[in-house]
Amino acid sequence: MRIILDGMGGDNAPASVVEGAVLASKEIEHTITIVGKEELILDELKKYKYDEQKIEVINATEVISNDDAPVRAVRSKKDSSIVKGINMVKSGEGDIFISAGSTGALLAGGLFILGRIQGIDRPALASIYPIVGSEASLLVDAGANADCKPNNLLEFGMMGSIYMEKVIGRKNPRVGLVNVGAEAAKGSTLTKAAYDMLEQSHLNFVGNVEGRDVPKGACDVIVTDGFTGNIILKLTEGLAWNILQVIKRKFTEGVKAKLGAALLIDKLSGLKKEFDYSEYGGAPILGVKGPIVKMHGSSNANAVKNTILKGIPYVEEGVVDTIQNSVLEIEEITLNDHE
Amino acid sequence: MRIILDGMGGDNAPASVVEGAVLASKEIEHTITIVGKEELILDELKKYKYDEQKIEVINATEVISNDDAPVRAVRSKKDSSIVKGINMVKSGEGDIFISAGSTGALLAGGLFILGRIQGIDRPALASIYPIVGSEASLLVDAGANADCKPNNLLEFGMMGSIYMEKVIGRKNPRVGLVNVGAEAAKGSTLTKAAYDMLEQSHLNFVGNVEGRDVPKGACDVIVTDGFTGNIILKLTEGLAWNILQVIKRKFTEGVKAKLGAALLIDKLSGLKKEFDYSEYGGAPILGVKGPIVKMHGSSNANAVKNTILKGIPYVEEGVVDTIQNSVLEIEEITLNDHE
Repeated sequence: MRIILDGMGGDNAPASVVEGAVLASKEIEHTITIVGKEELILDELKKYKYDEQKIEVINATEVISNDDAPVRAVRSKKDSSIVKGINMVKSGEGDIFISAGSTGALLAGGLFILGRIQGIDRPALASIYPIVGSEASLLVDAGANADCKPNNLLEFGMMGSIYMEKVIGRKNPRVGLVNVGAEAAKGSTLTKAAYDMLEQSHLNFVGNVEGRDVPKGACDVIVTDGFTGNIILKLTEGLAWNILQVIKRKFTEGVKAKLGAALLIDKLSGLKKEFDYSEYGGAPILGVKGPIVKMHGSSNANAVKNTILKGIPYVEEGVVDTIQNSVLEIEEITLNDHE
Repeated sequence: MRIILDGMGGDNAPASVVEGAVLASKEIEHTITIVGKEELILDELKKYKYDEQKIEVINATEVISNDDAPVRAVRSKKDSSIVKGINMVKSGEGDIFISAGSTGALLAGGLFILGRIQGIDRPALASIYPIVGSEASLLVDAGANADCKPNNLLEFGMMGSIYMEKVIGRKNPRVGLVNVGAEAAKGSTLTKAAYDMLEQSHLNFVGNVEGRDVPKGACDVIVTDGFTGNIILKLTEGLAWNILQVIKRKFTEGVKAKLGAALLIDKLSGLKKEFDYSEYGGAPILGVKGPIVKMHGSSNANAVKNTILKGIPYVEEGVVDTIQNSVLEIEEITLNDHE
């Protein structure tokens, strides 16, 4: 297997990406190909001892940044690490493309270069959602599609369930639909129709999941439109950060509090770790004809390593083919619904 | 002024409601009329010393519960505390109706009995949104309308801004639109169109507010559709609860932690209070022809008291009339947009 890594994506590129590749290469037998500005990447690689059989560098002279308009960038920057990397997956030179670069460019690249899996209307971004005190859930769609139709939510449930089972290893994952009430009849026009479709499917559909139940781990696969998914993910991040900041401030007010905090220092840092979901790997773009994984822009070397490791079952378990094979059921349910 | 209080709504009715009315009556000169099962309410009132000129009871033999279908209940239970109370506002016998009962029934009662303010397409529930470490924001719509059109979001911004200024006392409140990115061009079909409308208005529109900025107090009035609003409110509640539970558990693991926690006990309980927004009063239903305020079902006496106190500026500052007077601007912007 050849894993293609974007050397230029993310806030700490290429340093963190290269270090992560070196760390991963010590744990796996596969080849890691880093695509990007050769000179910069080789400079970083020099800092480490590594097996030269397992890490190779392919030069790409251009970089797509977060400020570039995604579609235009993918069409014009042919020698960028993102376009070159995804093209390698398309041609079969690589098996998976991993990048901490622009989400929009990765989505556009997935759509234009690899193409949608036939029968999948809307590819989606699937993000790990941290559950404090328990195992993480998977949120689909985390932001690729702001406007959705009911059959898209069925697709998200199907694709998320397959990924959760095959890559994260959660058996028979519980699929929940984000909604404003527990009853089937509750919600928007979109969620009411999606509920009916999810219920007809073979998925382990546990029904509607309310906002207050999402952070409690009420389901393994959290299905929602990309607008709501983006809000859920960022609100969680912002609120957790805010609470931890206030705790920090309060716990350093006065001598007594400082002493108390000193005694709790290991518990407090443990709390912060509850929100660190880098061990689960990055966010796959599900529904395109090949594995692409988006890492957080601020990924450190350890997060890069974990994403590479999780990329292996993504390829070996045949997630893309399994999604392809489940399209028939989606089409049947969608057709039923339009009768 | 006569404040009409639902004696039968909420988990702790009529005990908390009656106690809250007694507490409020000591601070105000207005009359509080408690509507509900007379016998039960009088039994509770007996427990307290209070000015009999300031608290009166009106009998209502029926109760609308959270399990009742709202529209049907409002139409059939004519002698319920909710229907009777809202009718008193309509007839002018009362100036405001406050209830911890079914949100759906209060919305249906507002719509069918009082009616919409002419020119307001969709009345909305405006809920206080707690900001940890800072002053609360107001979230509109918190769940009345799962499906919205762009002009509805403009209405929410207008109505929320008026309430925030006149009742909560926030000068020139910053109005933000919940969205998936900061740029005007980001978002769903709905938010893109709503952005344009909000920008044309006289409101202090600060643009899009991302999920991560909502809990940091990025704006005073958080404008969103009722689906997203409900998710934001409940997710915040669930996540905060979950984090506090995990803190509690971690801080009681082992002797050292217990000691540390003991030193921090006042800081920890202070943290919990950051999420207590009962001092701001309940959630007004904005856009109907009279003041109706929904309290949390679990409101204690203090929350009831605060809601009664906040009800006074709601009436005295003429919020309903001010909304009526701002309708022309909404209509002009909406018309512009459809040209």
